Amino acid sequence: MRLILCGFGVVGQSLAKLLESRSEDLYARFGLKPRIVGVFDTKGSAVESAGLDLSKLINVKKKYGTIKKYSSSKNNLSGVDLIKSLDADVLVETTASNYKDAEPGMTHITEAMKHGLHVISVNKGPLALAFPSLMELAIYNQVLLRFSGTVGGGTPILDYAKNSLLGERIVSFEGILNGTTNYILTNMTNGMSFKDALNDAKQKGYVEADESLDLDGLDAAAKLVILANWVMELKVTMPDIKRTGIRNVSADDIKNAAKKNCAVKLIASCNKELIVSPREISLDDPLCVNGTLNAISFTSEHSGTQTIIGRGAGGIETASSIIRDLLDIRQEISKI
Amino acid sequence: MRLILCGFGVVGQSLAKLLESRSEDLYARFGLKPRIVGVFDTKGSAVESAGLDLSKLINVKKKYGTIKKYSSSKNNLSGVDLIKSLDADVLVETTASNYKDAEPGMTHITEAMKHGLHVISVNKGPLALAFPSLMELAIYNQVLLRFSGTVGGGTPILDYAKNSLLGERIVSFEGILNGTTNYILTNMTNGMSFKDALNDAKQKGYVEADESLDLDGLDAAAKLVILANWVMELKVTMPDIKRTGIRNVSADDIKNAAKKNCAVKLIASCNKELIVSPREISLDDPLCVNGTLNAISFTSEHSGTQTIIGRGAGGIETASSIIRDLLDIRQEISKI
Repeated sequence: MRLILCGFGVVGQSLAKLLESRSEDLYARFGLKPRIVGVFDTKGSAVESAGLDLSKLINVKKKYGTIKKYSSSKNNLSGVDLIKSLDADVLVETTASNYKDAEPGMTHITEAMKHGLHVISVNKGPLALAFPSLMELAIYNQVLLRFSGTVGGGTPILDYAKNSLLGERIVSFEGILNGTTNYILTNMTNGMSFKDALNDAKQKGYVEADESLDLDGLDAAAKLVILANWVMELKVTMPDIKRTGIRNVSADDIKNAAKKNCAVKLIASCNKELIVSPREISLDDPLCVNGTLNAISFTSEHSGTQTIIGRGAGGIETASSIIRDLLDIRQEISKI
Repeated sequence: MRLILCGFGVVGQSLAKLLESRSEDLYARFGLKPRIVGVFDTKGSAVESAGLDLSKLINVKKKYGTIKKYSSSKNNLSGVDLIKSLDADVLVETTASNYKDAEPGMTHITEAMKHGLHVISVNKGPLALAFPSLMELAIYNQVLLRFSGTVGGGTPILDYAKNSLLGERIVSFEGILNGTTNYILTNMTNGMSFKDALNDAKQKGYVEADESLDLDGLDAAAKLVILANWVMELKVTMPDIKRTGIRNVSADDIKNAAKKNCAVKLIASCNKELIVSPREISLDDPLCVNGTLNAISFTSEHSGTQTIIGRGAGGIETASSIIRDLLDIRQEISKI
């Protein structure tokens, strides 16, 4: 399988490392031999139709801060150039999420599909703004679109709801889908002010470069859009979400919740309406997890309420989800 | 699909109700049309090669306490008689678990496989005593053996670990796999004595007819055997489990745990050794759930620790897991 990799940040580099360390195992157990034939970062590109040398790629990035120096040829190509000029099977989109126009991810994904490439996106922007249209585009071009890493990081929440509960009807769900705000609210519950809790989260590297994505609930809302489309088969995008962030959660709110044996959590819920908002959750509810953990509770028609808890993000976890998607695409292709 | 149903207790009746209420939906969404062609309970049998009338079956059971009065013909057949005399595709085994010789379930399952029937077992006995041999027998006879309902009831724990984490390595797991002992320990944590907590659980109908299955950890150990075989591919049976029940958990043990911000839980764990034993679990651990809830944490190589929490048992939840297994068998058959 030949991959084009868009972006070479934390996730891209983790993927390269994981493909390197697991290459023998992936081939022995699944017959999977993924090769990255093209990659670009903000400064340049690297191309090798036989597959890039991943150790060299990682070392070049480490040394020069860009993979442009991997080779002196074809080192100035854009994502679209790579899609147009390379023979490849799968595009892996890992550039940063943006909820204004979802670029450059949106163009990468749509161009790739038009050129017959399957797509794995861990970039939430394009899915949040245009999930229904992207799904249609994939079907029209007879390619697969996968995005396990967008919700729950390494925890396979999307697959669980879709496949493990096969034949069961999910009637509603609610979850803590953003680890950063959960970390801040947990600190506030332990007595810190919002400002101190935010600074602590920033120091630990948990907060997005644009803090609004976390604090105003945009990240949680994007995940809610993806879940609602994939699990509940609703055709919705970002504007359909009623969204309130955590900036106005006060120490009093936290204290009042504690009196009722509750904690304040930023909850994304799908139950008739799609809402992201701070809410009081009982300390006895399995959903009420602390720190940077994510959790989601699915309520099904016949199997009760089921909660999945896991780490939300992290480079290696997300890279692991990309490999799951690759295996899934391989299995789906082999059915044809 | 033609089913032979062994046993018509809570799970068998829930399955009949669910097949009745969901028949249109199962056919429309999955093309699945399951018919029960034979069923027996402790007093007699009912047979109809075109498929039994499920409403009538449930009403007869309600009125007479047995399905023997469904018809005056073929109402004295045993499970083995049904397997030998009926054309059927799948055997659904729902008789009570027993960990001495696993009968009569063991004979039903092995006879069915020898006659080319796929098997769905929610009876843990045969799997706990002979998982590796039953798997071999299934492969030898080219039939499928499924058992989603044995662990976690309606919560698809087995499928999650095997399929949702495809390509990921689970390195260890630990869980609260028995809701009854969790209920008793939760009550003890709230100040009740062991005796009172046990009586309360009995009154609520949570305790098995043979209380030893819950209290001495046999039920949890059986589930641990199934998980270890299915998820970790270990070839183990009941005697391989180091097992301690909850009879000796004292009020002091509970108090000492509370001082360390912990609760005492009956934990089944697979980490080098296979152990069922009461252990102190931090209240902050997602695994530390209360009441009759079950929970299991899988630790994976690259995706961190993931916890699934759900109701452990219940007729309708288990019936729902049988339908999942039916759909899975249908999908697997269609691949051939």
